[in-house]
Amino acid sequence: MPSDMPALPPALDLLGIAIFALTGALLAARLRQTFVTMAFFALVTGVGGGSVRDLLIGAPVFWVRDPLVAPVCLGVAIVAWIAPRRWWEGSGNLIEWADAAGLAAYSVLGTIKALRFGVPPVPAILMGVVTGCVGGIIRDVLAGQPSILMRPELYVTAAALAASLAAVGILAGLSPAITWAVAAAAGFALRGAAIRWSLALPSYGGARQV
Amino acid sequence: MPSDMPALPPALDLLGIAIFALTGALLAARLRQTFVTMAFFALVTGVGGGSVRDLLIGAPVFWVRDPLVAPVCLGVAIVAWIAPRRWWEGSGNLIEWADAAGLAAYSVLGTIKALRFGVPPVPAILMGVVTGCVGGIIRDVLAGQPSILMRPELYVTAAALAASLAAVGILAGLSPAITWAVAAAAGFALRGAAIRWSLALPSYGGARQV
Amino acid sequence: MPSDMPALPPALDLLGIAIFALTGALLAARLRQTFVTMAFFALVTGVGGGSVRDLLIGAPVFWVRDPLVAPVCLGVAIVAWIAPRRWWEGSGNLIEWADAAGLAAYSVLGTIKALRFGVPPVPAILMGVVTGCVGGIIRDVLAGQPSILMRPELYVTAAALAASLAAVGILAGLSPAITWAVAAAAGFALRGAAIRWSLALPSYGGARQV
Repeated sequence: MPSDMPALPPALDLLGIAIFALTGALLAARLRQTFVTMAFFALVTGVGGGSVRDLLIGAPVFWVRDPLVAPVCLGVAIVAWIAPRRWWEGSGNLIEWADAAGLAAYSVLGTIKALRFGVPPVPAILMGVVTGCVGGIIRDVLAGQPSILMRPELYVTAAALAASLAAVGILAGLSPAITWAVAAAAGFALRGAAIRWSLALPSYGGARQV
Repeated sequence: MPSDMPALPPALDLLGIAIFALTGALLAARLRQTFVTMAFFALVTGVGGGSVRDLLIGAPVFWVRDPLVAPVCLGVAIVAWIAPRRWWEGSGNLIEWADAAGLAAYSVLGTIKALRFGVPPVPAILMGVVTGCVGGIIRDVLAGQPSILMRPELYVTAAALAASLAAVGILAGLSPAITWAVAAAAGFALRGAAIRWSLALPSYGGARQV
Repeated sequence: MPSDMPALPPALDLLGIAIFALTGALLAARLRQTFVTMAFFALVTGVGGGSVRDLLIGAPVFWVRDPLVAPVCLGVAIVAWIAPRRWWEGSGNLIEWADAAGLAAYSVLGTIKALRFGVPPVPAILMGVVTGCVGGIIRDVLAGQPSILMRPELYVTAAALAASLAAVGILAGLSPAITWAVAAAAGFALRGAAIRWSLALPSYGGARQV
């Protein structure tokens, strides 16, 4: 990730990528896949959203020139493979919450990066949503699973909230640090509420009540 | 879309994007999805083909720097969500014909844009086909539906006809306006005939007769 | 493909693309698809991996400016369509071995191209794997088939071996020709052994013994 992104230290950034990568590796484990598939899923989930964003906005793809990001994803896959299985049995909840934090943080980061590249507000917000959600969508399509897109679970909405607040904050001239904190906290809170109370959006036709 | 594309006024261009976006939104409605999924499908279907073309030919992705395209797609999703359901019940046929017009127009536009970027004829024709068809293919893959690619229905062929005529016209030095009109009309006529008489291509092995 | 890739003459390069394209066309035939689908699959399989690699490393997409690659893929589809069906019945084995050669060669080629573009070693190896494998993965996702990623069969591993040896050879200063030969031979041998003795990787949880 470029060093000019405000208020996300590189170590935190790598931590976020590692968490996304772990969700990919654990899906592969759940599907009883091989180590190679696990590594592929870790990589695609960790860097997929940011890669699509960078291609769309015309930026160099962040991880291709970075000596650390890809090894971190592969390292996550190695840990997921060799760790005792019970590590992951009790951790579904922890991983879901960590994923919520990553989702919120990356949606903000993607929006701000797009705005800095001169992208207008509405596409910039969409770039934030892409950064947060597309890695998981690619992972699910490759796995032949119904992606988060096709489930009523409130997920993309939390990314859209974080991205929108980030765009509003930056365009209103707020300090990047405050914008970061408020937008990411709101996205995380919404996704957290969805996890805690199983919030779902209504489906078309109104068959489902929230 | 760049303003140097011949004979497609910006309003018509946005109309074409809106029609493609509507086909995406209505697929989400048919699958009883949420509004967020509907918006995502509207966007992917409206801009997917042109995005892949722009990435492949090395052009800036047309909608990322445009302040109107993404809001139009999102607006289409809002209309699709709030309009009374009976609007869409009677409209399947109309939408199919509108999609045929969009398919023909975008296949021509994509080919001409690629030729202007210095792409040789055969890849340029393929870029036209990509522009017309890939948005719908991505939409179907995300939805877990069999894409137009896997159905014998005559669809990609109409895009290929429009794109080929566009390339021939431009390379033969015909005026862009005439090329546009002839190529798009031919593609539209072929796709229209396919809708009207359920034309399908023969399958490999000859099991199916046209 | 750029002419500065060592030790892969253009004719061999087109042959490799044609072989990959043929695997795409024959999958379409097996699924009883139309000629248009066959041509689309031939193209996607032939150029998909190299296209994703070029997008990720920021290189011009190799086949878009090339007057020959796309016609070769389309020509392969025509041959696959009109040839008597018994040609392909006896040839499954030959095609699998040819695919193994293409896999090894392209994994090496992709890695070397990425290194020349200044990509660090680990991402460069991944670019090699992408070049060798992603065309087939896109083909399988479009066809709604379980991709090579989701089968325990040893395939991506052979690409990773070839790509890793290529990176080691180049970074150790070995001559490109020797690096090419050793890395591609090792990848081909591993994939060949997997075909010959049905080698598979163990799955997560240890249910499957190699």
